[in-house]
Amino acid sequence: MTTTITRGKYVLVRADLAGDSTVLTDGAVAQTDGRIVAVGSYEDLRAQYPDADVVGNGRQFLMPGLVNAHHHGRGLSGLLLGQPDGGLETWINHAWGRRAVEPYNMMLYTLLNLIRTGTTTIMFNQSATARHMVWDEAQANLRALNQAGLRTAFSLAFKNQCYLVYGNDDDVFSRMPDDLASGVRGVIEGSVVSDEDYFGMTADLIRNYPVDSTNMVRVLYSPQSYHWADEDTLGHIAELARAANVGIHTHCVESYYQRLYAERLHGEGQTPTRRLHELGFLGPKTSFAHGVWLTEEDIALMAETGTSISHNPSSNLRLRSGIAPVLEMHRQGVHVALGTDSTSINDDDDLFQEMALAMRLHRPPGLEVPHLSSHQVLHMATLGGAYETTFGEDMIGSLEVGKRADMVLLDWDRISTPYVAENLDVLDVLVSRARAVDVDTVIVEGSPIFEDKQFRTIDAPAVVEAVREELGTPEPEDLTHRRDLAARLEPYLRDYYADWPVPEQPSYHYQSLG
Amino acid sequence: MTTTITRGKYVLVRADLAGDSTVLTDGAVAQTDGRIVAVGSYEDLRAQYPDADVVGNGRQFLMPGLVNAHHHGRGLSGLLLGQPDGGLETWINHAWGRRAVEPYNMMLYTLLNLIRTGTTTIMFNQSATARHMVWDEAQANLRALNQAGLRTAFSLAFKNQCYLVYGNDDDVFSRMPDDLASGVRGVIEGSVVSDEDYFGMTADLIRNYPVDSTNMVRVLYSPQSYHWADEDTLGHIAELARAANVGIHTHCVESYYQRLYAERLHGEGQTPTRRLHELGFLGPKTSFAHGVWLTEEDIALMAETGTSISHNPSSNLRLRSGIAPVLEMHRQGVHVALGTDSTSINDDDDLFQEMALAMRLHRPPGLEVPHLSSHQVLHMATLGGAYETTFGEDMIGSLEVGKRADMVLLDWDRISTPYVAENLDVLDVLVSRARAVDVDTVIVEGSPIFEDKQFRTIDAPAVVEAVREELGTPEPEDLTHRRDLAARLEPYLRDYYADWPVPEQPSYHYQSLG
Repeated sequence: MTTTITRGKYVLVRADLAGDSTVLTDGAVAQTDGRIVAVGSYEDLRAQYPDADVVGNGRQFLMPGLVNAHHHGRGLSGLLLGQPDGGLETWINHAWGRRAVEPYNMMLYTLLNLIRTGTTTIMFNQSATARHMVWDEAQANLRALNQAGLRTAFSLAFKNQCYLVYGNDDDVFSRMPDDLASGVRGVIEGSVVSDEDYFGMTADLIRNYPVDSTNMVRVLYSPQSYHWADEDTLGHIAELARAANVGIHTHCVESYYQRLYAERLHGEGQTPTRRLHELGFLGPKTSFAHGVWLTEEDIALMAETGTSISHNPSSNLRLRSGIAPVLEMHRQGVHVALGTDSTSINDDDDLFQEMALAMRLHRPPGLEVPHLSSHQVLHMATLGGAYETTFGEDMIGSLEVGKRADMVLLDWDRISTPYVAENLDVLDVLVSRARAVDVDTVIVEGSPIFEDKQFRTIDAPAVVEAVREELGTPEPEDLTHRRDLAARLEPYLRDYYADWPVPEQPSYHYQSLG
Repeated sequence: MTTTITRGKYVLVRADLAGDSTVLTDGAVAQTDGRIVAVGSYEDLRAQYPDADVVGNGRQFLMPGLVNAHHHGRGLSGLLLGQPDGGLETWINHAWGRRAVEPYNMMLYTLLNLIRTGTTTIMFNQSATARHMVWDEAQANLRALNQAGLRTAFSLAFKNQCYLVYGNDDDVFSRMPDDLASGVRGVIEGSVVSDEDYFGMTADLIRNYPVDSTNMVRVLYSPQSYHWADEDTLGHIAELARAANVGIHTHCVESYYQRLYAERLHGEGQTPTRRLHELGFLGPKTSFAHGVWLTEEDIALMAETGTSISHNPSSNLRLRSGIAPVLEMHRQGVHVALGTDSTSINDDDDLFQEMALAMRLHRPPGLEVPHLSSHQVLHMATLGGAYETTFGEDMIGSLEVGKRADMVLLDWDRISTPYVAENLDVLDVLVSRARAVDVDTVIVEGSPIFEDKQFRTIDAPAVVEAVREELGTPEPEDLTHRRDLAARLEPYLRDYYADWPVPEQPSYHYQSLG
């Protein structure tokens, strides 16, 4: 058993929501076989393990590996592939116009971005594409993830209703000209996975990746959102997940329209979260994504049941969803993680930029009003994502003895150039200034997967070249047809939602409470 | 007279608010002695000017130079120098704890950041430091700006009241222990510039830099904000500016407290903008910074008078001011520019990042609700800053015949790696993905000041080394004392504002309207 010491000028041992984070100066972490065995001053650890290899030059910033708690694997962004940003309800069908990329290369390309930004664990939610591709894509994704060496909570997103709108799709189909309706039906039918197939594939994945402390993959159920599956199916999924002792990951009130849907169906006060609660869906093994339009009561239900959430600020802005009530989530004690949703502000999955955006976004006016601190956003990006749906606080999220050695070394020289005043909290400086470009080394389970800015598990130039080569050919003709269908469909969708009472001049999040 | 052709795979000739921007493919701009003489396809211009030098490899993106419309010259950020972010009213006095840097080197360091991000014109507002330094600092700043070759609208910020709070400082002094009060008085007295000195210095600057089409510097008056000068002085400044035919730049309702101040003083409905209007202060030669808490009526007054504004989204978030009603400004036809206020989200004055942030921030929920487009934010960062307070639309802001050749070449290869789908608007891709790191060449008045990522007018390594060396010495003891004073002062300021009615759960901007 060899021991390795990783050292830093600063070591963030544990990010604390209340601002009482543990940061060591000239500190180090010793690990044996991927487990942390000691944390302390470099000098002490060096004396304790005189034969250990040493990683780090002593001028870097050492911190826990980041958890990207909501991701769909589009490292080559939807935008670049042909789907411009827009309001979620119309944007989503423009995904038909995304150019396809061979799944294994696409996932490796995605992983280059994720690793480069210091990510060691991801919540990966595979979106629906063509039905016949789902299983093969899952295999390709898992192969790439295993090769890269990231810890992964893996799920196949599933829907069995509301393919066009939140409600009865036939209301929209009936208004379209026949050729548009049949074209749209064709695209949708090509993507529908039956309940049976979905349950079968997920059960197979759970068998292949049993919950086991040595396993780098955890499989989850993932009905895509409340409105995208009927309540019977949602209740059934909750039972299946409990029986298999696995988690659930689902989108929840990403947009205001999604909240209105539950109310239209079940009456005032019936939010998606309330309905999911009644279906036995909430709990410590369930995590939401987005939650932009949660009510105070929804948040109370989440806190009460231990349901966690991934905050995705960039995506919520890009898709015109709004700003999520993160301060209220914290106030009520909900476990909040951070994710880029493959739709980050710079289109590059930089979770450091996402931390900075989150810290800046949640700063309402008023000198006495709470606002997100650097400690809190660092918690969200580390321990916040270490819940039962991923790998749990006993395994990841901080650099404490007994946990897995998932760590990131950052180039503090650049971050602190030319000067950092002596009175500053180094975590303020870190969140304000550290970006993906500063990540020097990424270690998972004790092994470097990125070292001195070089990828150790992926042949990066070959992946980029393969993707370029594949996309260097002319766009397939079928794509023009699909883009045309999505463009022609859009006015019908807008018309469908035209009289839904979205507040005319809402705040982003404050008015969503209550 | 030599002619130079600058070419791009794409050329943004003019950004248009309504989305009808002019973009050429395989285009070029020809300039003679710093004036644009032709714009068209590269092929045509090459034939027209066969002997011209050619700049650019044909794979880049060529666009107008950026205007940073609100800046205080702190390229080495307030944060790094010892002033953590916070609510504006308490944050501002923590500036006392910023470590000083020799002004000429500081300005050169600032200019490295500004040039690297493609900035060719800045609105530079010199903040008050020590009284005895103001003139020397101004000379050092102007020397650095002239050396760098940036077009500059230059002003000395001036205040003659409300040094501690918006109201009577004695209300706060009277509550402090004597030693704190005398310490705070000492710091403030060291910074106060008399009305006489301010008018004298500004008049001298105006004489030194007459408004002249060949002059790279324009001098403006700058009372720091409505509340920071008494109304008589503000009225007098408006007269002086008119008489000298120069512009005015001032902060306006950066925070909600600033709006409340005018109301407390003059009664309901009396906003700073309304008061300034009555003082003859508004007009096409006046520009505001921030404007987070403008009312709809304020915006109407600005539109009516032609008063322009710099939107500073990062700064407004960092200092907990809020989100400015930019969509409403556009709706009413106000001229909106973009600035980083030396307080950008990544602490690096990257105006491309600022464009992306602005585009993402102003996207309220609702499929039919307006939101900022890429065309609009590009307009804000170019033509939006080309108003009478800077250098006017006849000189800068677009690449049209007769204008000055202020241009930026960006590395489109990186921005578009590995692929850009054929259906996309290249301006969407540009704003979503281009960042300072992509700036390859910056040209002002036809001359490159940054070429192939090398600074041509500043010895960058020498500047960085000089700053490092200066700051490599221990922090002066006096600084600890000043930081201590600011920290002890803070609770008194919070107490002063405690009962000011800032809405408890406001939206950032929507509730500010009305």
